[in-house]
Amino acid sequence: MKEIDFIERVLQDAAAFVRREYARRSEVEVSSKADPTDLLTQVDLAVQDMIVNRIADTFPGDIVAAEERGLDRDPEDPACRCWILDPIDGTQNFVRGLFPTFGISLAFAVEGRAVAGGVSLPIATDLFLAERGAGAFRNGERLRVSEVDSLAVARIEVDFASPRERRETLDRAAELICEAGQIRCTSSTVVGMCSVASADMDAFVHVAMEPYDYAASQLIAEEAGGKATRLDGSPLLLFDGKRGAVVSNGLLHDALLAILRRRTETMLPSGI
Amino acid sequence: MKEIDFIERVLQDAAAFVRREYARRSEVEVSSKADPTDLLTQVDLAVQDMIVNRIADTFPGDIVAAEERGLDRDPEDPACRCWILDPIDGTQNFVRGLFPTFGISLAFAVEGRAVAGGVSLPIATDLFLAERGAGAFRNGERLRVSEVDSLAVARIEVDFASPRERRETLDRAAELICEAGQIRCTSSTVVGMCSVASADMDAFVHVAMEPYDYAASQLIAEEAGGKATRLDGSPLLLFDGKRGAVVSNGLLHDALLAILRRRTETMLPSGI
Repeated sequence: MKEIDFIERVLQDAAAFVRREYARRSEVEVSSKADPTDLLTQVDLAVQDMIVNRIADTFPGDIVAAEERGLDRDPEDPACRCWILDPIDGTQNFVRGLFPTFGISLAFAVEGRAVAGGVSLPIATDLFLAERGAGAFRNGERLRVSEVDSLAVARIEVDFASPRERRETLDRAAELICEAGQIRCTSSTVVGMCSVASADMDAFVHVAMEPYDYAASQLIAEEAGGKATRLDGSPLLLFDGKRGAVVSNGLLHDALLAILRRRTETMLPSGI
Repeated sequence: MKEIDFIERVLQDAAAFVRREYARRSEVEVSSKADPTDLLTQVDLAVQDMIVNRIADTFPGDIVAAEERGLDRDPEDPACRCWILDPIDGTQNFVRGLFPTFGISLAFAVEGRAVAGGVSLPIATDLFLAERGAGAFRNGERLRVSEVDSLAVARIEVDFASPRERRETLDRAAELICEAGQIRCTSSTVVGMCSVASADMDAFVHVAMEPYDYAASQLIAEEAGGKATRLDGSPLLLFDGKRGAVVSNGLLHDALLAILRRRTETMLPSGI
């Protein structure tokens, strides 16, 4: 089976499961991980187990890097066939929120580079798919980034991340926040990056992402004509350590890098 | 007809219209108002006209304050029977966005105080209703704010507002942004305030709101057990000029006022 077809099928099945669980989410067991706002549910684990098992059945020998159960490690051999999975990106929004702004992300990489990827937004029933060199699609419709070329009217998603990265986010992005046309924060990387691909947002900024957050949606954004780099403008690699990124429609990219380079002193009164 | 029953019926009809227009939103004509990011569509105008006409038919002589067509003025007689309408709160999100985070807001006030209010989120098919002293409901189900009492784990919606209020927002909220458990920004006041009422968020902060933004959802949040004040802790009044507000589950309110009182010097490099 082709990897992109596998991604499509497995994301459709996982989305159907997540829709059922979302309908009864008040009963779902929630625990926390690194800090009290870093949530984990039974649904994250069940989705990961289901997809990891399907990969093992269909592509035996392939490596899996995934957010939960200790699989959050880069592969030892960077050239290997590797699957990168985030079972629920935006778990907080799954647990609480008027709008279901979370997604399931699965990418396939060889030689340390994503070549196929998919993101499902289960409740919106949106499925984003991309293959390297073959374009990006939402529910079968070809995607193209926006043509907005001025920061003053641009819709920018700034991910405020976890509390320990909040100060860094403000220092980096305060000037951008003041100058952009609009600021949004759904706090789901896949929602932010797929929004750039679908031209619903013009750019997305995050100071500290993990590979499972962006493996699939970086490919989707790039295949829709967008640009993704580290905050300093250098290439955003897949197994790259936890670091920041700018994803844009391309037209805004240089202006975004320039404004993010000028760090801000945020003089907090209590000296946080 | 009782005012709350009128609100329920007219919001259901308006929501059905907005759902049809949303399905063909790529064809909707968009213009801008005060600044290039302050959008107006045919749909805002059509919804306002429909509701204003229905009020005139059902409650002749009542005053209407509404966002569009020059009706954005406080009534001359503050004691009058008055309807306060925002036909689409979150027009930007109506025009662009992966998730339909916008709403229709209608409140009825006497003696300058909202006594009945409703908010429709048309695509989510959620209808929030509240009468003073009789509780708040979503789709008939009684609402109760959250019980989160620590900022470190609280979900806070910070509305970054229009570009001209962005610096004030950062100066006010930078410390809160650093200390809160999570930060979100949908940039729809009614979504933010109804999220507090439904316990999906723990608080909402905005530095510059108009009465049509909050007339209905303030009542909904308060009737769900929440608290709404100006940023200095004094009562948030209906015809109050454009000013800021904090809406919370009550438990977080004093901590929020204290942290918002400590203004931050955001030292932007270009001296914006």
